[in-house]
This record gives sequence, C-alpha cells and structure tokens, in this order.
Amino acid sequence: MIGAGQLARMTHQAAIGLGQSLRVLAETADDPAAQVSPDVVVGSYRDLADLRRAAAGAAVVTFDHEHVPAELLARLAADGVTLAPPPAALRHAQDKLVMRRRLGRLGAPMPRFLAVESPADLDAVSGFADEVGGQTVVKAARGGYDGRGVVMAADPAEARAHAARYLAGGVAAVVEQRVVMRRELAALVARSPFGQGSSWPVAQTVQRDGICVQVLAPAPDLPAARAEQAQRLALRIAAELGVVGVLAVELFETLDGELLVNELAMRPHNSGHWTMDGAATSQFEQHLRAVLDYPLGATGAIAPVTVMANVLGAAQTPTMSIDERLHHLFARMPEIRVHLYGKTERPGRKIGHLNLLGTDSGDLADLRARAELAAHWVAHGRWSDGYDPHRAGDVEQRRSGRPADEQKEWQS
Amino acid sequence: MIGAGQLARMTHQAAIGLGQSLRVLAETADDPAAQVSPDVVVGSYRDLADLRRAAAGAAVVTFDHEHVPAELLARLAADGVTLAPPPAALRHAQDKLVMRRRLGRLGAPMPRFLAVESPADLDAVSGFADEVGGQTVVKAARGGYDGRGVVMAADPAEARAHAARYLAGGVAAVVEQRVVMRRELAALVARSPFGQGSSWPVAQTVQRDGICVQVLAPAPDLPAARAEQAQRLALRIAAELGVVGVLAVELFETLDGELLVNELAMRPHNSGHWTMDGAATSQFEQHLRAVLDYPLGATGAIAPVTVMANVLGAAQTPTMSIDERLHHLFARMPEIRVHLYGKTERPGRKIGHLNLLGTDSGDLADLRARAELAAHWVAHGRWSDGYDPHRAGDVEQRRSGRPADEQKEWQS
Repeated sequence: MIGAGQLARMTHQAAIGLGQSLRVLAETADDPAAQVSPDVVVGSYRDLADLRRAAAGAAVVTFDHEHVPAELLARLAADGVTLAPPPAALRHAQDKLVMRRRLGRLGAPMPRFLAVESPADLDAVSGFADEVGGQTVVKAARGGYDGRGVVMAADPAEARAHAARYLAGGVAAVVEQRVVMRRELAALVARSPFGQGSSWPVAQTVQRDGICVQVLAPAPDLPAARAEQAQRLALRIAAELGVVGVLAVELFETLDGELLVNELAMRPHNSGHWTMDGAATSQFEQHLRAVLDYPLGATGAIAPVTVMANVLGAAQTPTMSIDERLHHLFARMPEIRVHLYGKTERPGRKIGHLNLLGTDSGDLADLRARAELAAHWVAHGRWSDGYDPHRAGDVEQRRSGRPADEQKEWQS
Repeated sequence: MIGAGQLARMTHQAAIGLGQSLRVLAETADDPAAQVSPDVVVGSYRDLADLRRAAAGAAVVTFDHEHVPAELLARLAADGVTLAPPPAALRHAQDKLVMRRRLGRLGAPMPRFLAVESPADLDAVSGFADEVGGQTVVKAARGGYDGRGVVMAADPAEARAHAARYLAGGVAAVVEQRVVMRRELAALVARSPFGQGSSWPVAQTVQRDGICVQVLAPAPDLPAARAEQAQRLALRIAAELGVVGVLAVELFETLDGELLVNELAMRPHNSGHWTMDGAATSQFEQHLRAVLDYPLGATGAIAPVTVMANVLGAAQTPTMSIDERLHHLFARMPEIRVHLYGKTERPGRKIGHLNLLGTDSGDLADLRARAELAAHWVAHGRWSDGYDPHRAGDVEQRRSGRPADEQKEWQS
C-alpha cells in the first residue's frame, strides 16, 4: 500500500485475518501503519525508485491516498505492476475536474460547475455564480483533502478571487453551485476486478468546519428507495470508471430529496470507519478482498444503528497522556470501540475514531451524545459535561462496571 | 508477549486499535505473530538472555503459552519486570498437580484425582482407579497441550503403565476419574490488576480426538443459573489465584448437570476465538486491557449464536493453494469470518479458524453444518458435500452473491 497513514494501519489489521501482511510505503518509520507492520519501505510516493521498491514482488499495489503523480503510476503500470484501482480509474479521484466532466458524461446528478483552467476562464466566473444564485464553492482540482482546497465564496467576486488564487498556485479550479442541502450522505461500495460489486448501507456524514466529525449508519430516516438509488449510483460509477477496491461516493441530499454527487474517494474512507464494528465485513477487509480479487464479503449492518465519531486533536494537547485518557474512557463506557492511529496530537488532526453500536434505531440521539462526549474527552482530556474522572469513588464504580459492593460480592 | 503463535498474532491485531504495537519473542522470524508485527525478538523462551531482550522497556510481559520455566520467570520478576499473569498465578496453568491441589483447597468442584510424583506413588494407582470405576484419564502434570500429555486408560493396569511412563520421562502424573459427561463447557473471564473481573457468555466446546473442533456460544440450552454458576466459579478462581489477563476454565457438565473443572489456561484461549466476531470485546483486546490495567470492555454477545470452527491441517496438504481455497470459501459463504494464522500446513495443526454468526438461536444446527463444511473445505480443498468449485457457472453466481443476470442489471 502506498502511504502509511491510518487507512494503511487499519488495512494491515484486516490483512492479518486473511493470512496476509501488508507492505507499506511510509514517509517516515513512525507513520501510523509503519508502527504496526513488519514490512515498511521508507520513501516518497513522488519518487519512482521508492515506488518501485515498494512494488517489488507485490501481488498488487493499492493506495491510502490519491496523491501519487499520474506519470509515476504510468511508469509502474509499464513495469507490469498491477495497480488497484487502476490509474485510469484513480484519476477521477485525483482531479475534481476530470471527475466532474466524467460524471457529467455519465449523466450522474451533481451540482452545476464551471471549470477554470486558465486566466481566460476567470471572466466566466461572475456570470456562472450569478446564474447559480451567487453563493459558490471553489475547489482546487487537485491536492485537497479534509476540507483543504475547498472554500466557500459568498459572492461572485469572491469566487473569482479564490479561483484566481488556485490558478496562480498552478492548479485548475472548479467553481460549483452551492447546494442548499438537508444533509450529506455517503454511499460506500466495493468492486473487484472480476466485476463483483457490493454495497454497505448508506450512511449520513456530519461535518464541522469541513471535516467529518460523525457518521451515522444506516442514515436515519432515509427512505429505502432513496438508499437504493444511492447504492445503485455508486455501483454504477464504480463499474463505469473501472474502480477496483472501495469507492466512497459523497452525496448531498437536497431539501427536495434529490441526491447530488459531491466527491469520490477510491480507497477506504472515513465515512466507512463504522464498518469496522458495525458491519459483517469492514471496509478494510473488503478493500483487500477487492484488490486481491477475492469474492466480496457480506456488508449487512450488525446493529440497528452505529455511530462513528472522529477524535480530532485539541487546540491544546492535554497534559494527561492519551493512555490515561483511554483508561477513563473505558471506565465510563465499557461498550465503546476504540481505534487509535498512533499519531502525535496536533490541533484538528484525526488521531483516532470511536464506534458505538445501538440496540435500537431509537437510540440514535443518545448514541450521538455519548459518541460526542467520548470523542471530546479523548481529544481534550476533560468531559464536556462536568464529570470529573479524578473523583476516585466514582471511577472505582465505573471501572468495575458494577457498584463496588456488588463487585466484591460477585468475586468472593 | 512471550511466544509468537496465533494467539500473539491476534493479540497484535487487537493492540493496533488500542494505539499499541506488540513486541513478540519468536522462536523463528516466520512464526505467526512475527510475520505481522514490526517488533520481533527471535530467541528462546528457555533462555534468560532472550527473555530479557524481549522484556527490555516493556510496560508488561505476557504470554501466548504456559511453557516458560518457573525459574526464569522468577529471574525476570527479580529484574523488576511486570509479568501478567504473575508467576504465582501462572504456575496453576503450568502444572496440573499444583492446579488440582489448589482447586481442592478452594473447594472447587472437580474430578477426583491421584498425584503420582514418585515410583512409590504408583502402587496407589490401581486402588484409585478401582474406586472411581476403573476408567481413568492420565495426564502429564506439565508440558501438555491440545490433548498431548493426556491419555485415556481403560483399566487400572493401563493407568499405572501410563503414569509410570510419564514418571520415567521426568514429569509427575495426575490420574483422574474419567467423568461421564454430557458435554464440555468453557467459562472465559478476564481480570485486571485493579481487581476488575469480566465474563463472556459461557460457551460449549466440541472436541474430536482430544482437539477442539467447534465452539458454540452461548452454550445452547444451558440454564441461566448454571451459566451464572460457571461464571462465578471462573471469576472466583481468577481472583483467588491472582490471575491477570484472560482465564479460560474448561469444565465438564455431567449428566446430572454438575460442573467440574477440567483445565485452566491463563491467556487467550481457543474457546474464546468466537469473541473476535461474536462479542462486543474480543478476548485479545480484553487480555491487553487486563494486563495493561485498563478498565475491561463489555463482553455481551453480538449475535444470538456464534459458531467457531477450527481449521485443522489435512492428512494430505491439498495441491490447491490456501489462497485459492479461500477464494472458493468466500464465493460460497460471503458472511463467514476468516482468521488465518500464516502457518505451514501440517496434519492436525491449527492453521486458522472461522466464525459464523446466526440471527436466531434456532439457526444452530445449520450454522454448525456450514462451519464444519467451511473448515473441512479450507483444510482439505474439497467440499465434503460433493459441491465442485470448478463448475464455473456455479462459481460465478456464488461469487457475485446474486444470479449473474440480476447482478448485471444492478450494475448497469
């Protein structure tokens, strides 16, 4: 796997069960996946020699990000390396303009957009922005992630300025209609070279400042027909583009219930982290099964509802160690499923995620509140509800999962 | 972790989620856990220097087997190394005679036994065997596993001969009453240094030729009171012996419904492999949480019933690669959960296990049949029911999970 971030880390975890071990191309020996895999090539995904070292002898090469330059992918392919997804598919996840144009040809529903590839195109921005109601979203065609490379423009002049800035930085811009939406959804599917497709239940993603903070699966109150429409759309995109591996299709659900394609990712994706504990087959195992051309696994939800919460580094890293924070979290929530990435804490950085499973879809509000509480605690080292973990009596009871007296009786 | 077999391999898998990485002391660089962990010390668990290298800098040292000599454990403890379970607890899992005597003092229910520690003790064997009905089980006090070091004796003379053989090999023998039983159960618990105990649902273990082949969880038709009795007994043994980590208490259920302790294991155990997919917290994560003194995780079953089947190497290793066998298995059973150990196949060797979850406890017979079919297939490369995986049309349909026509329609 090219890249050794948390996606590669969790892919290695899944590989173990399949009797495999994942080699990773890591930027440093301390990358999240490099900490846990015995087969690490340290090097750059922008260096052909490093990519070749990583690919040597591998059955297939896959990716934990979209940033490998197309010309290097072409060189690897020319070497005879099997790439999954293949470069011809991956470019749609690497370049938002390529993606928009291709989806347009497929007739996939999406926001209206304007391509800005040269200074001459800038003159069209104002007219386009006026046409779509003034407010737009301006995106760098390449290189963005987690809300980086995406800005909101309140008026046509602002849109033009942002597009000009991207152009000056050497990258084309895509100016998009700003969709008034009910919420964001994610249709996660996998496709194998054999052509098998599989689809998990459609999830709702909850963003804050452009970063995903929670995922609710299945998406609450999503009519079955609309869910199926989203799944069919994602499977169709996977097939038409020749995707191999996991494909995440990020969608807007408009106030009218229309579904519009926002982004594509061709790898395990944050919107699928709930599958690690909430689905029969996790996205990481499925990605491996797809790229290795195994038949795909069952994708049904295990629980009526699963809530995933990202743990995002606090503005100020707590003095309490993350290990101690984990102790207190486990004391309070014995049922929570924790996935840490081994990353140094930095403000806003994804350092782990948590899954909570509900026994009833009516649990959702409570599960969301508890997931939020837990994620806030792990990041900040203080409960947002005033609970003090250092009140020992309280801790003792919570740690045992039973009142201290009952616990004693039980063990005696 | 001392030892790098499949238990260490799966413990490393669990460690990743906790933000940890497991160092293992492996006999060879190709041991199951050494294949997947970046932190491998190659050496012998019988060599103090090797043990010290493995222990250097570790927060805690734990075990994937019981075979580290007591005198070396004492040396490590004297170095200040934290051992979990501590040697004073572990000796009850290392020596069946020590275990029997201790359980006797605790008043735990168990088969009657006779200790044979010197040739002089051999004279008592006949009388003991007669007293308990003639048939006995003769065990080596130390060094056995997976049915090795355990023999059935049909009459008193045979019992004496077996005991004499163990003595001659330098190990004490335990001659035990042969219990007429309904079935075998396993009560799996964990205990932390803090003193917290937790218990999974009691499981039924199914043996063939002294080796566990299936585990059914929860044990079918086990009255709630008897299940709780087994759990309380296991938690009490864990507390009394000072166990830290997972403790498996193997039990006989007699025809009268009495529970008798057969064996103890102080580590993740085959009877708990079902927890990887069937319980809120797997035994591997729980073992880590216990030895690191985290609060323990929730232990409830995720499904009404889970069946675990061991994959035991066939008498003749199939010519079809295990990778291809896995393909066919996945094609036929998209819902099966597979855990392979990366081991060379040898007759009778545990090379992996499979979990199947049922949606209804009434599914048990069907689940057991499918688990048996799957385990047989993976080991032997042929279905026991005559199904031919090389009939391509059949495979195609099974791989897609849908009839080929419907699949095509879905993707178009």
